[in-house]
Amino acid sequence: MYVSAAFIAIGNELLSGRTQDTNLNYLAKELTVRGINILEARFIRDDETSIITNIQDLSPKYTYVFTSGGIGPTHDDITSLSISKALNLPYTINQKAYDILQHFYTSQGKELNTARLKMTYMPENANLIANSITAAPGFIVDNIYVMAGIPSIFKVMVDEVVKCLIGGDIIESRSLNLDVPEGVLASDLSDIQALFNDVEIGSYPQIEMQKTSIVMRSSNINKLEECFNTIKQRFAIYLQKVS
Amino acid sequence: MYVSAAFIAIGNELLSGRTQDTNLNYLAKELTVRGINILEARFIRDDETSIITNIQDLSPKYTYVFTSGGIGPTHDDITSLSISKALNLPYTINQKAYDILQHFYTSQGKELNTARLKMTYMPENANLIANSITAAPGFIVDNIYVMAGIPSIFKVMVDEVVKCLIGGDIIESRSLNLDVPEGVLASDLSDIQALFNDVEIGSYPQIEMQKTSIVMRSSNINKLEECFNTIKQRFAIYLQKVS
Repeated sequence: MYVSAAFIAIGNELLSGRTQDTNLNYLAKELTVRGINILEARFIRDDETSIITNIQDLSPKYTYVFTSGGIGPTHDDITSLSISKALNLPYTINQKAYDILQHFYTSQGKELNTARLKMTYMPENANLIANSITAAPGFIVDNIYVMAGIPSIFKVMVDEVVKCLIGGDIIESRSLNLDVPEGVLASDLSDIQALFNDVEIGSYPQIEMQKTSIVMRSSNINKLEECFNTIKQRFAIYLQKVS
Repeated sequence: MYVSAAFIAIGNELLSGRTQDTNLNYLAKELTVRGINILEARFIRDDETSIITNIQDLSPKYTYVFTSGGIGPTHDDITSLSISKALNLPYTINQKAYDILQHFYTSQGKELNTARLKMTYMPENANLIANSITAAPGFIVDNIYVMAGIPSIFKVMVDEVVKCLIGGDIIESRSLNLDVPEGVLASDLSDIQALFNDVEIGSYPQIEMQKTSIVMRSSNINKLEECFNTIKQRFAIYLQKVS
């Protein structure tokens, strides 16, 4: 079974250069090992129209859509409202989220003020994603998983979410590091790729540029091993010695 | 003048989790200081249909489109061909690129073989983007700037490209670090945002979660300073002491 996904990172700071995203990479690793394939990722602004358009565009196309960012208490956190609008669902207080935040703040002698209350508003009937760091939950509605942008909180939410995702065929990978620039390998590699439809062969020049990493990926483990051995034999003279 | 841009990162490795992208962040910083605003970024696979669709979708919408990845010599490098198809332009040898690579390889006693020759194929009449590291150039066609995915080469290409870009109104920014969780500030901050239409106010909780960074951005420097002073005064009690 092939399971697909898209990721939407929401936040002006990702597009202005203020913040280096790491959430896509973390999510991708966690999904890949579970046989869920991110086929595209989009980085967009904290802009209602952009959020609505992208949710409506991507949600029907993929098994899962994951978002990060814009679910905090401030005026620039508009993800939950925008997703409610995208799905034409009421934007309303989630009682479970309310109970969680009420308990979290009162136990610290703090107030669940209007701003914090905003974090309990979600599309109607959303299911919650636990947040063991700052309590304010993410949520799931339709096939959309809405999570925080702060990397540490995004991670704990992803770790919660993946427990319940139905994965597909696991795509295994093999890699070989070769002491040769990819321009020397390219022609042979192209021939080998043509022999192995089931295997995706990637060629990645290494920073020193006189080396190449060949990465093979497939859900067909027999073909993958066969491809791996073919490449290993064809390029035996370039194999890096294991130090 | 408002100048907009989109970024398309092309490469399976970015979506599988193998590779952490840093190109978006580098590009964003270089463009932001020149008054060019990235309004969205998309990460897509080395897939012809995806490349064509995204180029055709984004090129008419933005002043500039920048791409990274997929212009090397191997079978998985299909960006140049796909962009030619997206623009309905012949995919052909660029004589200047040929001369550059011919000189580069022969001067090292290497061969400009068929695989390397592939890196001279581009949409007809493309202008080149110099690559001081491995010679193989990027190119410009219409409003699309096609660059390498390897971060070191992407950087030298961006550094070339920005010399010739026409920027817009520079968006200046101011920031304040406050010793308080954003939930305490949110209501006042929302009121201040309502007073300053010209200023984009972002609120970013810091990792320790008891601190908040407020970032103000605007091309209207007077309004920006006024907003900065308003926020500084309103939240004076939370200002972090400069150590």
